[in-house]
This record gives sequence, C-alpha cells and structure tokens, in this order.
Amino acid sequence: MSDHRWKTAITQIKKGEIRVRGYDIVDLMGRLSFSDAVFLILKGELPTEAESEMMRGILISSIDHGATPPSVLSARNVLSAGNPLNAAVAGGVLTIGDVHGGAIERSARILQTWGKRPEPISVVAKELVSDFIYQKRRVPGFGHRLHETDPRTIKLFQMARDLNFSGRHLELAQAIEAELTVSLGKKLPINVDGAIAAVISDMGFDWRLGKGFFIISRAAGLVAHAYEEMVREKPMRRLGDWNFDYDGPPARQIPDAYR
Amino acid sequence: MSDHRWKTAITQIKKGEIRVRGYDIVDLMGRLSFSDAVFLILKGELPTEAESEMMRGILISSIDHGATPPSVLSARNVLSAGNPLNAAVAGGVLTIGDVHGGAIERSARILQTWGKRPEPISVVAKELVSDFIYQKRRVPGFGHRLHETDPRTIKLFQMARDLNFSGRHLELAQAIEAELTVSLGKKLPINVDGAIAAVISDMGFDWRLGKGFFIISRAAGLVAHAYEEMVREKPMRRLGDWNFDYDGPPARQIPDAYR
Amino acid sequence: MSDHRWKTAITQIKKGEIRVRGYDIVDLMGRLSFSDAVFLILKGELPTEAESEMMRGILISSIDHGATPPSVLSARNVLSAGNPLNAAVAGGVLTIGDVHGGAIERSARILQTWGKRPEPISVVAKELVSDFIYQKRRVPGFGHRLHETDPRTIKLFQMARDLNFSGRHLELAQAIEAELTVSLGKKLPINVDGAIAAVISDMGFDWRLGKGFFIISRAAGLVAHAYEEMVREKPMRRLGDWNFDYDGPPARQIPDAYR
Amino acid sequence: MSDHRWKTAITQIKKGEIRVRGYDIVDLMGRLSFSDAVFLILKGELPTEAESEMMRGILISSIDHGATPPSVLSARNVLSAGNPLNAAVAGGVLTIGDVHGGAIERSARILQTWGKRPEPISVVAKELVSDFIYQKRRVPGFGHRLHETDPRTIKLFQMARDLNFSGRHLELAQAIEAELTVSLGKKLPINVDGAIAAVISDMGFDWRLGKGFFIISRAAGLVAHAYEEMVREKPMRRLGDWNFDYDGPPARQIPDAYR
Repeated sequence: MSDHRWKTAITQIKKGEIRVRGYDIVDLMGRLSFSDAVFLILKGELPTEAESEMMRGILISSIDHGATPPSVLSARNVLSAGNPLNAAVAGGVLTIGDVHGGAIERSARILQTWGKRPEPISVVAKELVSDFIYQKRRVPGFGHRLHETDPRTIKLFQMARDLNFSGRHLELAQAIEAELTVSLGKKLPINVDGAIAAVISDMGFDWRLGKGFFIISRAAGLVAHAYEEMVREKPMRRLGDWNFDYDGPPARQIPDAYR
Repeated sequence: MSDHRWKTAITQIKKGEIRVRGYDIVDLMGRLSFSDAVFLILKGELPTEAESEMMRGILISSIDHGATPPSVLSARNVLSAGNPLNAAVAGGVLTIGDVHGGAIERSARILQTWGKRPEPISVVAKELVSDFIYQKRRVPGFGHRLHETDPRTIKLFQMARDLNFSGRHLELAQAIEAELTVSLGKKLPINVDGAIAAVISDMGFDWRLGKGFFIISRAAGLVAHAYEEMVREKPMRRLGDWNFDYDGPPARQIPDAYR
Repeated sequence: MSDHRWKTAITQIKKGEIRVRGYDIVDLMGRLSFSDAVFLILKGELPTEAESEMMRGILISSIDHGATPPSVLSARNVLSAGNPLNAAVAGGVLTIGDVHGGAIERSARILQTWGKRPEPISVVAKELVSDFIYQKRRVPGFGHRLHETDPRTIKLFQMARDLNFSGRHLELAQAIEAELTVSLGKKLPINVDGAIAAVISDMGFDWRLGKGFFIISRAAGLVAHAYEEMVREKPMRRLGDWNFDYDGPPARQIPDAYR
Repeated sequence: MSDHRWKTAITQIKKGEIRVRGYDIVDLMGRLSFSDAVFLILKGELPTEAESEMMRGILISSIDHGATPPSVLSARNVLSAGNPLNAAVAGGVLTIGDVHGGAIERSARILQTWGKRPEPISVVAKELVSDFIYQKRRVPGFGHRLHETDPRTIKLFQMARDLNFSGRHLELAQAIEAELTVSLGKKLPINVDGAIAAVISDMGFDWRLGKGFFIISRAAGLVAHAYEEMVREKPMRRLGDWNFDYDGPPARQIPDAYR
C-alpha cells in the first residue's frame, strides 16, 4: 500500500462542520446570496460588490432560452424514455457542447490570449479580426441566429458600466465588434456568450471555466423543462423531427455464397 | 404532415425578447437574486420574502460536501479520462441517484402523502413510524453517516422559524424525529435531505422536483471539482479504490471440443 | 488505513495476461465469436451451441431500429451540439429507459417471478392476465406501436424451436399471448422485448440484466447514427420537434413593491 | 411549415419489415455473426472473410480489462448511487475519453493522414517520428502503462498476417515502432489501441469511428461490471480513493463589513 495522497482545496468536511473555501457553510447560508456562494466556490474568495452584481446578472441571463436549445431536447427526451430527473438533467448538461454554450469558453480563451498583448486594444482587435478573416474562421461570441441585438448582452454591458466594472477584456470585445463591422461591412454584434466571456475574463476567471457558468445557470432551466415534460406529457412521445427519408441501399439479398 | 403541436409554459422567446414565466429576463437580471430566478422558473411565480430567504438557504446548503460524494468521483473521473467540462459535470449530475440526493425526493413524497391525512400531526407521525418499522424500512431523510447533528439542518430549521416559515410538513418531519427517538430508543435526527424535503413541501413544491434543488445547487460544486481536477491533476490518474481482489474462476482452457 | 478490500469475478489482469472469466483473452480472440464472448462475460460460462445461436440472434435483432427511437435522437443531438463520439453514444445509452428497451427488464421480471409458480403454465398465464387486467396494467412485452407482428419476434421464436431451445418462460410468454387474445378479444402479440425477455429467462439470465442485452446490441446502431450525424449534417442542426406553442403567463411586470 | 427533410442511410423501417443497409434483419439474424452485423452497420457492406475474422478479433480484444479502467469506475459508481443499469453503462461510455480508448481515434488519424503520403513507408515513419520528437509529443498508440508486450496486440497482428490481411497502415504502424526504438533507444511497442487503429485503417474505416469500436466492445464489459456491482455490493459504497487532504484556506470568518 503506497503513501500516495491527493489534495483538494474546495471544501473541508469534519464531523458537524462543513467549510467552503474556509468559510462555515452555516455562515454562508445566513449571509450570502446563492450567486455569491457560486462565486466563492469557483474563485476561492468572496466577491466584491461589483463582482456580486455581475455574477447575479450572468447567472440569471442564461437560466433558460425556451424549448429549442439542444440541451432542452436531450433533457426532455431522456425523461420521456422513462428515466429519472437526474438522468434527464445530466443528458441536458452533456449536450452543452462546443457549439451550444461552448462559445463562452472559446470566446474567453481568445479574449484572454489576445488580451495579454502589450499593444493598445484597437491594434490588438484589428490584428485579431484580420487574422480570423484570413483563416476564414468566425470569431466565437459574435453574431446570433435569432436576436439581432441580444437584450441580455445590452443589459450585461450596461451593468458592467454602471458598476464601473469593466476592464481590458470587455474593451477588447467591444473593439472586436467595431472592427468586425468595418471589415465585414455589416454588424456582427457581441452575443450573450461573448458578453459573458468578456465579463468573466475581467473578473479574473480562467477561460477553461467558461462553460461552467452556463452549466450552473442552465441547470435550473433544465430541471424546469424535465419537470414540465414529466407532469405535462405522456412517456415516449415524439420529440424528434421525423421529417426524414431513407436514402441508403435499396432492399437486397445476402449473396448465396455468403457463409 | 399532422397538425400536432405541443406546449410549454416556461419561457417565451421572440426576436429581441426573452420572457421567463412572463417576466422580461432583462428585468429579472436587474432586480432578482439568482435564487429568486430559480424559484420563479420552478414555481411559476416570484417568491415572497420568506420564500426567497429559504430558497437561498436551501441552495447554499447543498452547494458542496467535499471530495467523497459519488457525484464528485464521477465528475473528476470523466474529466480525468480526457473529456470536456460539460461531460464531467453531466457524469456528476447523472450520479445523483436514489441514495445520493434522492432522499430529498423520497422524503418529500412521504411528507406530502402522509401530510394530507386529516388527523393531528402527532397521530400521523406515530402511524407513519410504526408503519415503516413494521415494513422494516428506513424513513428517508433521517440519520446521517457522518454528522450526528447536521449543522445545515439546524440552520435551515432556524431560518424557517425566524421567517415564520413553517407549516404542516416541517411539523410532521419534527414529529417523525421525535417519534423515531421514542420507538427506536435512540436519536435518528432529520438530516439535510429531510430538512430540505420538509421546507420545499411547505413551499408548495411537488416532491417529484426534490432532486432538482440538489442538482441546481450541487452543479456549482461539481464545476469546481471538475475544474480543480483539470488544473491540478494529471490525466488518467488513479481515482478509484484499487484495493480489490479477483475471485472469479481460476485460469482455465477452452475445451478442445468447443467449436 | 483499513484492510478493506472488495472483490470482482469478471476479469483478471496480470502483466502480459488478461483472463476473462478464467479464459485467456488471446484464446477467446482466436476461437470465439463476439456474441459468445458477450455470453461468457455476462454468464460466467461458455455458451452451448444452442445458447450461442440464440445469443447471436438476440444481439443482431436489436442492433438498430432506424432514426426515430429516443436513444438515436439523444445520440445525434449530443453530437450535433459539439460533443465527441463517446458523449453522443453515452447520451443514447442513457436514454434507454423504462419505456425504451426497459420492457425487456420488466417483462423478464414478470416471467421469472410468475414462472416459479408450481401450477401448469396455462393456469399461471390465466391468473397473471386477470391480475394485470384487474390492476388496469399492461403486461410489458406485448403489443407494438408499429409492427402488428414483429418479424424479429417470429424469427427469435423460430430459432428457439429449431434449436430445441425453449423452456418454461417461452411457454409462459406464449400462453400469456393466447390468454390476452381471449381476455381482450383482440390480438396483442408478443413484441421483440417480450421475446427477448422470454429467451434470456430460459437461458438462465437474471431479469435485472434485461436492458443489458439491448444496450450491448444497440451500442452499434448508436455509433452508426452518431457517425452519420457527424459526417452528413451541420453542427447545431434542428433535431427537435419545434411545433410547439408557449402557453405560460402573458407578459407581465415585476411589481414595484418587489425588493 | 417548411419542406425541410433530412436523410439517413442506415436502417429502413416499414410495417413488419426492418432493413439494415438494405438487408432484411431477419436474414441477418439467420446468417450473420454479431460482429459481421456490426461491420455491416458501420461500413454499409458485408465483410469479406478476412474482414469478418479481424472484426471478431478486434471486438473481443477490448471486451474488458478488469476493474481499474476509469469507465468501469464510472459505471459502478453511477450504479452504486442508486441509478438504473442504462445510466451506469452511459456513465461508463461517457468516460471513454481522449486518454481512455481515445488513443484508437488519435492513432488512426495519424496513420491515415501520414499514410496518404507517396513516399516509401520507412521514409514516412522516419519523418513522422522525428516530427513528433521535435514537437515533444508522444505518438498515440505506442507504449502501455502495464503490459510491456500486450498479448492482444500480438494476437491481432498474427491474425492480420494469417489472414493475409495487412496493408499500408499496419506496415506504417510497425515501421513507426521500429523507428521509435531507434530514435528513443528503448522499445515503445504498439499497444492495443495502436494495433486496432492500424487494422481498422486497413479495413477502410474513417479514423473518426475509432472510439466506436472500443465503445461497442466495452459496452459488454461495462454491463458485466454494473451488474456485478448491483448484485454483489451495497449501495453508496466507497468506490473512490479517499486518500486525500484538504489544503485550501484555513477556517476563516466572513468579514463583518460584508453585506
């Protein structure tokens, strides 16, 4: 038996005592908001007043986006096939992939990588945009399939301004938006993924946590959808798009010679 | 093509407008706490002040319980095998089963079913306990493997009292605890699952949502653990308990006669 | 550190040696079919010739059922949202719930429980059917939403007859079918779930393994669907049924009095 | 309502008829082995005799590797927390990530990409190895943490030789092994992932299906482990490695000034 031991710095458990990042959970229950507790567990420290407000705004902004997102389809579909609530929500969280929620991660990565450059923001934005256009890549976090101007983005940016909570990453995001308009000749506005990416970057969160904010927030929406499916719909209902045709090989026989 | 249509009552999406249970998400971002928004999306209505406080307390109480719960093991293990953050958290949420978090659901079901009886609470509790003892079943929500008196339970009950937020289900839970002490001759205290079950029942939540509160809360802890695994540990590390022996058939040969 | 150790009887690993249920995996690779190896790992022993044939038939029968099953929807949807192949197939397997594949488990449970009764099969079937009708429950494993007579069922039963592989559970299943026809006045044929349930029960498999056969078989179909989605479709495509309406609360304001 | 329709080429379903890649499933049940059916559904065509043998060998080779792989830990852990068999196996499949099973995919990708070069195999292998050494990357599919010479690899390669089933990708894999020995001064043998990668590449399978072979095969092992956990162990047992210490912030108070 080896003397191997591993370490964790999140929560300490003793008999009758639970401490999250050093704070007694009972004190947290009495004095923090839930979004403050989320901030604490992710960051390791209590939020400032501005961080607390922003965190609240971010978590509410992503709580739900109706019945069409893939994560909702998965959650409802898993539930409908006769599985428990936790399996349904797990199916939903599993679906929060690179092109659904994942833009927060990819956008924050770009903002944090390019944001480290010493040049003025406008120069960095110009180079970044021309680099992406040259590589024929879309800049993640800009453009939305439905909302021309996403109301959540506007609100998040307004909150950031009102709270004097705005740093290099938010500026860079806005400079990219301006630069994209010039380079593409049309508006490709920052979407809610990009806005969250900018704000969490200014809060000092690692881009690799990007999907985490979306997951924590959307977990509530997924529970609501799975529960609605459970109480409103019959099991095994048709949730998929059945407008499809078979275009594989026509009916054929196994050759006689086949073993 | 049929005229089949299905319905959802959670969130309405229009171009440039997102309304959760009728409220503009931008207004929610400006004026609600995140736990209020969670209450709204699950219940359909804004919380009262007392409900808001209780919700906050419930969600913080379950945010994390260190590195030993099965859901944390799953999340870290999925991450460690080379999967993205969403897959890791999904693995964790999937693990929130009947004996891990699921006691909230089972306990709330019992409180809500028995709570409907017209007899006085003390009579209902006596019958319930003798019924469970007769069936040799444990009453879910009572007893904890680690904490004799769970500090979270005490805090939740104290909050309920201070907020004058306490109804038939909480009374029933406390009457069951008293009755269990009498019948078993030892204290089997309400645990945090039982406390949450009692409180959400008094808030008017369906027992089938029981695991949902735990999932929404613990999602934050699971993100923190998966992220810690990602940044602190090497991939494919030994996360399981390898203290096992093989006790199956000894080495043997496929019989010669076997096709 | 305790002297706690746990045990496994499936596979023994030594340096340069892997033994499944005692047999060297290299010998299995040289002499068994894959379905024989599946039988071995689940049952602990090599199949007889009849068991080998039936196992082959069972596993092929469930390999795929086109694009409409919920498990396929989940697999494609998880993939489409930007997740890796393993996550997509996991989403599919997760969806194999109580009403999708789960009928094998429930049907085998009933056949094995009732099959233990000492009375003649026809008497047991009569009592079972009248019991279910009295309780207004459907007997799992009978009836199919699409196929009046499922070709896979017919083939499985024919294989069982040809191989002289047919025991009390298969007889019971057929007696239930006959009894249902009499009692309900219409044919409610054994479906493929019921047929598999009967055959695996006659093979001596525990009903709790019921979903396992379906999972092992359908894993291949799910891989094929996830791969087809990956190479044929664009990410984030519309996979769900969007024919829905919002019927929740109309647009409303947060009351001014609200904190 | 749009005239949007999507397409699938895998399985055609009509009333009373199921055709996989054009073949009646009833005929497949009568005449194919299960691994042949897996080949058919993945490839679209029936296997030749050599392909049939190799497929069988591949699928048996990965059926199980004892109790220590991360996917087994997940499957047992999900089951132990009170979840159904399908959820447990899904947890296991989910865990088959980039560093567990995923080496097949990465290795096949490299063999297929470099295998397209027109130069002789020995030249390609030399360049590939020096390229990886220069980039300080490990070549996926070579080396094993336990088995110096993996018996499964030897068997797979022997089968390939005996069946005269060996093409450019297998040759490239062996040339890489030789080149690695020269360049690193020690043997870094092809492991089972690399062997499977080489063989499926010679069979004409897309590298993006790499994990698929492992998933289909290991699904059987995962079912066996989840079932063993279900019938042999108590729920909520200690499956994780609890040899850990908390090294986060010491006990501290929320500052009085904090809201």
